[in-house]
Amino acid sequence: MNRFWSPVVQTLTPYIPGEQPQMQRLVKLNTNESPYGPSPKALLAINSQTNDDLRLYPDPEGAALKQAIAKLHGLNPNQVFLGNGSDEVLAHIFAGLLKQSKPVYFPDITYSFYPVYCKLFGIDYKTVPLGSEFEINLGDYSAPNGGVIFPNPNAPTGRSIARSEIEKLLAKNKDSVVVIDEAYVDYGTESCIPLLCGGSCPENLLVVHTLSKSRALAGLRVGFAIGHPALIEGLERVKNSFNSYPLGRLAQVGAIAAIEDQAHLEATSAKVIQTRTKLVEQLNALGFDTLPSTANFIFTRHPKHSGAKLYQALRDRGIIVRHFKSARIEQFLRITIGTDEQSGELVAALKEILA
Amino acid sequence: MNRFWSPVVQTLTPYIPGEQPQMQRLVKLNTNESPYGPSPKALLAINSQTNDDLRLYPDPEGAALKQAIAKLHGLNPNQVFLGNGSDEVLAHIFAGLLKQSKPVYFPDITYSFYPVYCKLFGIDYKTVPLGSEFEINLGDYSAPNGGVIFPNPNAPTGRSIARSEIEKLLAKNKDSVVVIDEAYVDYGTESCIPLLCGGSCPENLLVVHTLSKSRALAGLRVGFAIGHPALIEGLERVKNSFNSYPLGRLAQVGAIAAIEDQAHLEATSAKVIQTRTKLVEQLNALGFDTLPSTANFIFTRHPKHSGAKLYQALRDRGIIVRHFKSARIEQFLRITIGTDEQSGELVAALKEILA
Repeated sequence: MNRFWSPVVQTLTPYIPGEQPQMQRLVKLNTNESPYGPSPKALLAINSQTNDDLRLYPDPEGAALKQAIAKLHGLNPNQVFLGNGSDEVLAHIFAGLLKQSKPVYFPDITYSFYPVYCKLFGIDYKTVPLGSEFEINLGDYSAPNGGVIFPNPNAPTGRSIARSEIEKLLAKNKDSVVVIDEAYVDYGTESCIPLLCGGSCPENLLVVHTLSKSRALAGLRVGFAIGHPALIEGLERVKNSFNSYPLGRLAQVGAIAAIEDQAHLEATSAKVIQTRTKLVEQLNALGFDTLPSTANFIFTRHPKHSGAKLYQALRDRGIIVRHFKSARIEQFLRITIGTDEQSGELVAALKEILA
Repeated sequence: MNRFWSPVVQTLTPYIPGEQPQMQRLVKLNTNESPYGPSPKALLAINSQTNDDLRLYPDPEGAALKQAIAKLHGLNPNQVFLGNGSDEVLAHIFAGLLKQSKPVYFPDITYSFYPVYCKLFGIDYKTVPLGSEFEINLGDYSAPNGGVIFPNPNAPTGRSIARSEIEKLLAKNKDSVVVIDEAYVDYGTESCIPLLCGGSCPENLLVVHTLSKSRALAGLRVGFAIGHPALIEGLERVKNSFNSYPLGRLAQVGAIAAIEDQAHLEATSAKVIQTRTKLVEQLNALGFDTLPSTANFIFTRHPKHSGAKLYQALRDRGIIVRHFKSARIEQFLRITIGTDEQSGELVAALKEILA
C-alpha cells in the first residue's frame, strides 16, 4: 500500500504465471510450452533482420503479419488484431469489448487471468460452475450478459467442446460478444475460425490465438484475435490509445515465417498428441484419473495421493508441473506434454513416488 | 461506432504515430530515431539467443535487465520497472499512479499521447500553457494536482529545464507523483536519475527512459521507469494484472547488451549533437527561427513560409519531417537529427524550396 497509488491498484490481486526456474537439469512441464523448437524458418527470418534497422520503429499496424494470418485462414486482414502475446490481446478485449453494464460470464474453473483483468478494468463478472465432469455446459450461459469468454479447450482441464455447440450459443446470444480463447486449439480441438470466413461472419464472435504454444514462440510474444472488422476496429482504437508499437521488428518477421510454416506446426503438434495418448495410458495404469484432453497438457489426479504432495515429490526430483490450490481442483496436477523422453522420466518418477 | 464496443471506446481519439513510409530512397527525419545503428554487442546478443529456446517464456520479471539498468545508474533493481517501449511504461503510470481525484497537469504543447492515456483510463487532466518562448515554467504547476508529467527535454519543442528547477518543484509538490519523461535526455539534458540514488530517493519522483532513441533500438520495444521502490511496486501490480510477459527473450538480452555499452551511446549521441549544432546554424542562416534544442530533433519555423507548405515541399523531394496541425505550433517543423549527409540533403532541399 502506498499513498501515491491510484485507488484501483490497492484492490488488485495480480496473476501469477507458472515459474521459470533457473535450476539446471530440469524437466519443465509447468507452463505448456512446446517441447520442440519453433519453425527453423522463423529463426532464419529473425536472424535476417537482426541488423542496424533495429534503430527504426516497427510497422505500428503489423500489416504484413496481418496479411500472413489472413491468408492462412482465408480471411481479410481487417479481421485480424495483433498483440504482444495473447495476454495483451485479452487485456484489450476485456477493456474494449467486455466492459459493459451487464456482467461478463466465464467458467469458475478456467484461465485465472480473466478475473484479474476484470478487477483491473472494473468489470463486473459472474463465474459459471463447470459440470460434474469438469465440462463447460453452454446452456448455462443463456442469461443476459455483458459478454461470454472461455478457452476451448478449457484450461487447466484440457476439455473441449464442439464447434456446433458454440454455434448454438451464438444463435441464442446475439447481444454480447462471445470470445473463444483458442490458445491450445492445435492439439485436437475444432477451431471456430471457419465460422468467421466468408460472408456470414458473425458480428459478435472473436477467436483468440497465440504463437506461444503450437508455434513454439513463447519467447517472442505474439498473439492475435480474429473477428468481425467492427470488433477489430474497436480493439485497434484501444491499442492505439495504449501503445502504438506492441510488436517489435523481430517479433513481426519471426511470426510471419512461423505462420507460413504450417507443416512444422502440424508435425510437432502430431508428435505432442502421440506423446499425450501414451502418457495418459501410462498414468491411468498407475491409478491416475485423467480428464480427456485435446490440449498440450493433461489434468490428472490420483485417488489415493494428494495433489500438493505429488507436486512436491516431483519437484524434489527436478520435475516441475503445475498445481493450483483452488476449490475442486486442488487434488489435480496440470502436466504439460513434453517429449517422449520427458514423459518417460515423469512416469518413472511417479512410479517411484507411488511405490 | 459499434454496439459491442465498451462505452469508453466510443470516446477515444487514438494517438497517431509518425508514419513509417514504405518509399524507397527516403530521408526519414520524422520519428526521432537514431541515424546510427544500435550497439553491435546488442546485435550479437540477440543472434546468440535466436535458437530453440524461443519456445520458452521469457523471465516475466526481467531480473537480469533490471540488474543491468540498476548497475549503470547506481540504483537498486527494485527501483526499476520495465515495459514494452516507454509508451507502455507511460500507460501503466497513468493507470496506476496518475488516476487520482485531482487532475493531472501537463503542458499544453507536449507529447500528444498524454491526453490519449487520460481518455482511455478516465483521468481528469489540466494542460498548462508553455511560456512565450515555448518554455515550461514549473512555477505554473504549484496548484494541488493528481500528478505532474512532462518530457525533459519537452517534445516537440526540444527545450529542456535544469535539474535544480525540478528539485524545486519536488520540494513544493509533496502530495502527488512527478513524472519526468526523459526519452531524449542523452543529447544534452540534465537527467533526474541522480536524485533517485542513495538514501534520499524522493517518494514521488519517477523518471522514464526508452531504448528507442539514443540506444537505437526502436525496433526492439524496450522502455523503463526508475523511482522509489513503492512506486515501482504499484506499477508491477498493474503490469501483472495486464500482461505477465511484456518483454520477450530477444528484447531482454538485446537491451542488456545495449545498456552495458555506454561507450556506444556516448559516441553516437556526441555525433548527433555535432550534427544538430551545424544544422541549426545552417537553417538560421536561411532565415529559420529555431528553438534551442537539447534533443535529437529541432523545432523550427520560417517567418515567411508556411509550415504545412514546407512540410509538403520537403516530402515531394523524399524528405519526411513532422508537422503538427495544432494551435501555436502549426508553422513549425519538427526535424529529427540525421547523419551529416542527411542534414546536407535537407539543407540543399530547403535552399531550393526557399529560392
